[in-house]
Amino acid sequence: MKTLLSLGLRHENGHLLVLDQTLLPHEEKWIDCRDPDHMVELIQRLAVRGAPLLGVAAALSVGKLAEEGASVEEIVLAAQRLRAARPTAVNLMAAMDRLILARDPRHLRPSLIAQEAEAIFEQDELLCRQMAERALPFIEDGDNVLTHCNTGGLVTTGIGTALGAIRFAHERGKKVHVYVDETRPLLQGARLTTWELGKLGIPHTLVCDNMAASLMSLGKVQKVFVGADRIARNGDFANKIGTYGLAVVSHHHQVPFYVVAPHTTFDTHCASGREITIEQRGAEEVRAGRSPAECAVWNPAFDVTPRTLISGIVLDDRML
Amino acid sequence: MKTLLSLGLRHENGHLLVLDQTLLPHEEKWIDCRDPDHMVELIQRLAVRGAPLLGVAAALSVGKLAEEGASVEEIVLAAQRLRAARPTAVNLMAAMDRLILARDPRHLRPSLIAQEAEAIFEQDELLCRQMAERALPFIEDGDNVLTHCNTGGLVTTGIGTALGAIRFAHERGKKVHVYVDETRPLLQGARLTTWELGKLGIPHTLVCDNMAASLMSLGKVQKVFVGADRIARNGDFANKIGTYGLAVVSHHHQVPFYVVAPHTTFDTHCASGREITIEQRGAEEVRAGRSPAECAVWNPAFDVTPRTLISGIVLDDRML
Repeated sequence: MKTLLSLGLRHENGHLLVLDQTLLPHEEKWIDCRDPDHMVELIQRLAVRGAPLLGVAAALSVGKLAEEGASVEEIVLAAQRLRAARPTAVNLMAAMDRLILARDPRHLRPSLIAQEAEAIFEQDELLCRQMAERALPFIEDGDNVLTHCNTGGLVTTGIGTALGAIRFAHERGKKVHVYVDETRPLLQGARLTTWELGKLGIPHTLVCDNMAASLMSLGKVQKVFVGADRIARNGDFANKIGTYGLAVVSHHHQVPFYVVAPHTTFDTHCASGREITIEQRGAEEVRAGRSPAECAVWNPAFDVTPRTLISGIVLDDRML
Repeated sequence: MKTLLSLGLRHENGHLLVLDQTLLPHEEKWIDCRDPDHMVELIQRLAVRGAPLLGVAAALSVGKLAEEGASVEEIVLAAQRLRAARPTAVNLMAAMDRLILARDPRHLRPSLIAQEAEAIFEQDELLCRQMAERALPFIEDGDNVLTHCNTGGLVTTGIGTALGAIRFAHERGKKVHVYVDETRPLLQGARLTTWELGKLGIPHTLVCDNMAASLMSLGKVQKVFVGADRIARNGDFANKIGTYGLAVVSHHHQVPFYVVAPHTTFDTHCASGREITIEQRGAEEVRAGRSPAECAVWNPAFDVTPRTLISGIVLDDRML
């Protein structure tokens, strides 16, 4: 595969490199991903994260395996293991299906697999731009935009989804200030979104997730922009835990709420939010050494928001 | 003053001792409080916290000063400094006014001040019991009760306010399970409420604040119980940041929401929530070493919830 460069994922000189997102913002460490099983591990421990990037990283990992001379059987098994690495973000499944699993194994050719993986990487960058252009009218000059989790250059090969739309508006000269939900338990907002916005020079203020409603009651938020991990046919969507509560408080305060996601996040097999599997993660992510060690914890990584609570979903190719 | 014992505050052998709540649950360290200025410091760094306890601890600190032979002028100045230590919880102001500042200085007698401080300690315990009895009908057998922050034995000299009501229902044989909001940024739920519930043997599950709405959408929460730091005449109230958002999502899901507080939290001088001063605290409480060091932060310690969003306010002497 050729050289491919993004903020959190690179292919260079035959090496597939991923930026360890668990160490940001204090350490920028690139991990040399050996093979698909290594990628499964990196995905499960969230070194690689974010719905679109999961699909692209898994695709490059399979592309590299194909280039290295693996058999079709090995490639298919690797794609199956990657597809099952995490259950909620559909982009991972969509990328594996497109690349391998929805194809007739008799027609799989290693060189074509590598080319297709490159295409998935390059397409993701383009989709970001298309989403941002479509979202531009929904961000007005002077807006304070609240966002949740991290949806920028780290989770795509381009400028991002929701954060990409904010960045695009900023680069088009709209004055934007971003309120960043810290996004417990893993602090993707506090660690990653602040880091990206700082690099981009976009004004921002960090808040705890439980402060969003208070900000709205004080009139300090004009828009909410978030990404998605899976969008059902009826427009219900799964996203990082806390998104649903944010949608409820936004609706209460009549603050417009937009989802920005590529069409690869849209799941045509899923009729409504009720069908979306929500990943449950370990207790220690929440306890984090601060709570009694034996304390029971409920830790869903995502929640589901009904379409009826929000203003619109901006895909790269259409609005929902 | 006589020996006075509670979970987080003690007077023994002439020593005023406070349990350092910043170190719980991993370390139980009692601090020997030297004088009112030391108490101001302990209150400001949250070693001593919780609306009712702030009033009682300040009162004992002044009582001890009076017993040690301070002049009336010194006592009045100490009470004024304590009264201004934190701006939101009105119990602190109410206790200082009752003990010293609302009295004619010519009639202040050290022995009477010490006795009155003892009375404030002892009354607080009684108020907890009265609130719990009044709240009992609102907790049903089998309820999953969600609570925010810490409102138990640590913040009163008795069983607590909201958590005291839950404990009382449990001790009366009602089967109760508690969902504990971790309560960012300082994790009073994750560190203190879990610790208290563990000691009491009351089943509980820790969640991040941003999971409460999702729990409700799944039908897992039957009641919400919280405390208060100040209640206005119209029933609006200030409480730990996140309470307002919790009230909005409870209202959306039609989950009954009760405030439990002593009458010392009711501010007759305050017409509505708009008049309540909200303390802003430092950025590092939110950044906590995990975010870029230069990142701007908005960190209000409290928010204000309108009476119209909630089901009722249980005081020791009446319902609002």
